This record gives sequence, C-alpha cells and structure tokens, in this order.
Amino acid sequence: MSERQLQPAVTGFMADGTHVLRARVYYEDTDAGGVVYHANYLRFAERGRTEYLRDVGVSQSELSDEEGVYFVVRRSVIDFRLPARLDDALEIQTRIAGIKGASFEVEQTIAKAGADSHLVKVDSTIACLDRKGRPVRVPKSVKSKLDRHDGAGSR
Amino acid sequence: MSERQLQPAVTGFMADGTHVLRARVYYEDTDAGGVVYHANYLRFAERGRTEYLRDVGVSQSELSDEEGVYFVVRRSVIDFRLPARLDDALEIQTRIAGIKGASFEVEQTIAKAGADSHLVKVDSTIACLDRKGRPVRVPKSVKSKLDRHDGAGSR
Amino acid sequence: MSERQLQPAVTGFMADGTHVLRARVYYEDTDAGGVVYHANYLRFAERGRTEYLRDVGVSQSELSDEEGVYFVVRRSVIDFRLPARLDDALEIQTRIAGIKGASFEVEQTIAKAGADSHLVKVDSTIACLDRKGRPVRVPKSVKSKLDRHDGAGSR
Amino acid sequence: MSERQLQPAVTGFMADGTHVLRARVYYEDTDAGGVVYHANYLRFAERGRTEYLRDVGVSQSELSDEEGVYFVVRRSVIDFRLPARLDDALEIQTRIAGIKGASFEVEQTIAKAGADSHLVKVDSTIACLDRKGRPVRVPKSVKSKLDRHDGAGSR
Repeated sequence: MSERQLQPAVTGFMADGTHVLRARVYYEDTDAGGVVYHANYLRFAERGRTEYLRDVGVSQSELSDEEGVYFVVRRSVIDFRLPARLDDALEIQTRIAGIKGASFEVEQTIAKAGADSHLVKVDSTIACLDRKGRPVRVPKSVKSKLDRHDGAGSR
Repeated sequence: MSERQLQPAVTGFMADGTHVLRARVYYEDTDAGGVVYHANYLRFAERGRTEYLRDVGVSQSELSDEEGVYFVVRRSVIDFRLPARLDDALEIQTRIAGIKGASFEVEQTIAKAGADSHLVKVDSTIACLDRKGRPVRVPKSVKSKLDRHDGAGSR
Repeated sequence: MSERQLQPAVTGFMADGTHVLRARVYYEDTDAGGVVYHANYLRFAERGRTEYLRDVGVSQSELSDEEGVYFVVRRSVIDFRLPARLDDALEIQTRIAGIKGASFEVEQTIAKAGADSHLVKVDSTIACLDRKGRPVRVPKSVKSKLDRHDGAGSR
Repeated sequence: MSERQLQPAVTGFMADGTHVLRARVYYEDTDAGGVVYHANYLRFAERGRTEYLRDVGVSQSELSDEEGVYFVVRRSVIDFRLPARLDDALEIQTRIAGIKGASFEVEQTIAKAGADSHLVKVDSTIACLDRKGRPVRVPKSVKSKLDRHDGAGSR
C-alpha cells in the first residue's frame, strides 16, 4: 500500500545542474538491426527535457494553456557514437547550456546507466513560440527557473 | 516534369468494395526480433482506413472542422498469424463490414503483396464522437458513401 | 551519490499477483487528436508484460539466447474506453490469466494512476516459439515462475 | 486486375541526381501539438534514403547478408523550419553530397508536395560498418552506383 503511494511515474533527479533520467529500452525502441532505432534517441532526449522542466517547476501544459507559450525544437545535432540495445537501462543527462532571447540551448547525452562514456549526444535549440507560431521571449518565470540550474553557471 | 505531377502521395485503389493500399516495411517498423513490431500493424491498419475513407470521399479533417464529428477506434481484435519483415511490400485490405447507429465495423488484412494468405487480421469498431467525446450517429453523408462500398453489400 | 545508486530504471512492483508499472505520457505517445495514439497502448502493454516477467525472474533475452525460446503476441483484444492525455501518469496492471501448453493469457488494464476505473483494457495470448518459429511448450522454469504469481490462483 | 499489378508499393523517382519520395502524414506521425512529432522527420528521411538506394540498385539486405556491410547513421543535423500537419502530402528529396572512404554524406529536405520551400532539412553522415561494428570502406559496387547519381557531380 505505502509502496504504491511512494512509487513515482518516472525516475529522474537533478545533480549539479544536470538532470538525470533513467529509462529502459523495450522492443518498441529497437529495429531489425538489433539496436535502438536511430530516430528514437530523440524520443529519449525529449523525455529528458520534459522531466528536467518538470523538476525545476516548469509545466509545459500550464505554459501553453495560461500564457500561450510553446516550446518547439528548432534544431538538433545528433552524434550517434554507439548503439543502445534491448533491455539496456539508459541514463539521459540534460543540462541547459545557455538562454538567449527567444530560445535556449540544451545539451544531452544518453548513456548506459553507470557507464563512463555516452552512446549518443544530442544538442538542441529550443524556441519559444506564441499561439500563432511566432517567436516570443522566454518567459521570465521560466528563465529564472532555468538560470538557477544553468549547467554553465553551476560550475 | 509530367512524371512528377502524376506521382501520387499514396498507392491505393478500390476493387469490389475492398480498398487495397500498398506500403513498404522500413527499419522504423521493425524491432530487435527482426520482424515488424506488433503494435505497428495497427499503424498500417489505420493508414488503410484513412485511405479508404479518402477514396470514397470522406475527409476526416473536414468532418471534424465543419461538423465536429470524430472517428475513434473503440475496439480492435488483432490476430498475428505470421510476421512481416524489413523491405516487404505489404498490401493492406480494408472493407466495411457493417454500419450501426453511431459506429461502423471495419475488417482488414495485412498481407505480402501478391500473396494468397494474410499475415495479420485486424477487426475494428470505429465510433463517431462529437467535440465533447459523446457518441453521435454516423453522419448521413458518410453513411451513404460507406454504403455504396459496403463489403457485405457488394457481394 | 547514494540517490543515484538507488534510482531504478523503471518503476514497477507486484501486488497480489498483479504487476503494476507506472509510466508517463510524453509527446511521442500522443497524436493530433490531442490524446494517446491508439496503437501506442500496445506499447504500454508490452512494457508492462516485460517488467512483469523481469520481476518474476524471467529474462526474455536469456530465454532466447540460452534456450532458443521466444515469446510472441498471437492475439490481442483491445477495448479503448477513454483516452489518456499528455503528462498523464499511467498505471499499467498486468496479470497472468492462464497458462496452456504452448501459450499463456495475459490480462492488462491501463489507467490513470490513482483512478478507480481503467482507460484501456488489453487481453493478449502470448505464444512460445522456437528459433524456427514453431510453437513449443512454455518452459517449465517459466511456468513455475508464472504459476506462483498467477492472478487466477492468487485469489 | 492490371491496375493491381501496376500499383507500386512506394512512390519515388529520380530527377537530376535527386531522389523524390512522396509520403502522406497520418495520425501516427503527429503529436498533441497538432503537427508532426519532431523525431518522426528522421523516419521520413530514412524512408527517402532507403528508396534512393533501392532506386540506384543498392539493396541493404543483400549488402548485409552477402557482404556483411551495414549502413548506420553516424551524425544528423536537423533544421526544423516549419511543421508538417495531418493529411499533408510530403515530398522527401534526397541527394548524395559526397562520398569519403568509409562514409557518405546525404542532404535531404522535407517539403509539402508542390511547395517551393522546405519544412525540414536533414544532413546526415552515413557510415559503413562490418558485422563487428568496425568502419569499412564503402564497397566499390555501392560507390559506383552512388557516383553516377552524385548530386554534386550531376550539376
């Protein structure tokens, strides 16, 4: 009973300005090459960014419902170093690398849990848009929450 | 130039009340078992239903925008007989098996193109909903278009 | 440091013969209807079955590598009652409903965490195959582990 | 009958060293933002590369089965300019931008069919690997087929 109440829906935490999310590789993530399908690393990356934002108190659904502000990926650079495989426990590390006027930079790595080096690296530019798809400044409330955990500043 | 203009975005046609859609299996559709990931047959089935409706003149986006009517899958029964594999050219056969007040029945098979027997069979109940998610009758305009191609009636 | 070591990759547990897995709904799971794409409930269901098996000590990769035995979904019946939405914390409940010679029955529900009633119900027949895709008996080692947690027997 | 035999599984063609593939956007491709889920553009891109290779006579399954050579994506740079939406007919343009020893560069755009400007641009480095995952030279048979359609050379 108590175990049930304590059980979270996800397994992430913040450490030194970097958010760490654990995720398992299931059949749905793999392809006939026997490894994770390359596009699916962007899914893991998005889960990591979402949980990062949630952890620092930024609710994307509230932002869009109340302020009409949306985050969209504007650009991603993905280095596929080594493949992840079925059953792997992955660790998605996410940190904010910089905040500009209407966008922010996110640096992410995906590694096997406990491993020293990563499998995949994803650097993304996230833009803020209004309901009509026009660029708007990162809201102050968001910026202050991101600043506090800014990976660059925390070192 | 003319080749370009003639080139369609999809490759489907209607034959004797049954709609046939061709689709290729790509890496994205497969899993580490070397075959199509089981949930993805529902994707192929939905492509088949969508192109069936488009072919008989039912535009789902118009229906939802103009009449506030949505189609949702209420129930699916899937028999996975044999697996499809990377590079297979599949043939998705779709026919309407019956129309009730607020729903209709769709019978679909997925086979290798040119094969006599199917790999997977998907029987689905599709419900009509209004904007608030309440059941509504299948619109007359839709019913008359489906009736004309009703697999049961065409035999 | 210790938080990191304690952090699991997934969040599941067994209670009274039923396995419960928590999972978050991300953008990747949704569609333009604003809800979870219907085929993706089969993904959540497969995650639930995988973690059930892992929890009772059945490793699917060991089974296939060492004994040449594979589990495949032979049939699924899915009732889509109500949709899950972005950011929902879902609870996937999995129990074994019966074991036959070369297959077993799994009953699953997907609900919002903490809710009394489910959104989606998935009943599946899982078959055991050898490397050539022929049906084989459920291995004794697996059967004894499933029996112990058989939902039917635990009542 | 004859319509059936003529009907291809995919709809692509080569024009001036650039391969063009048409593809429809289905619900499966979209997300709750009402647009194509960002990771799924990599799926469209991979379909385009696969059909390009098939069109110039390179069979990836034969290559891996007979010569033990695999193509993997080593790096992708994706610019998300504008979103694609449900029902859009997309045109995926693929051209080879250069061939090095053990890899080749592919430049791709995804646009609405008939549009002058693209929605998304994907530049990828594709590496050749042997069965053990070590880099190997692009096989001569592949290189000669790519050279003939090399986008750079064809101008």
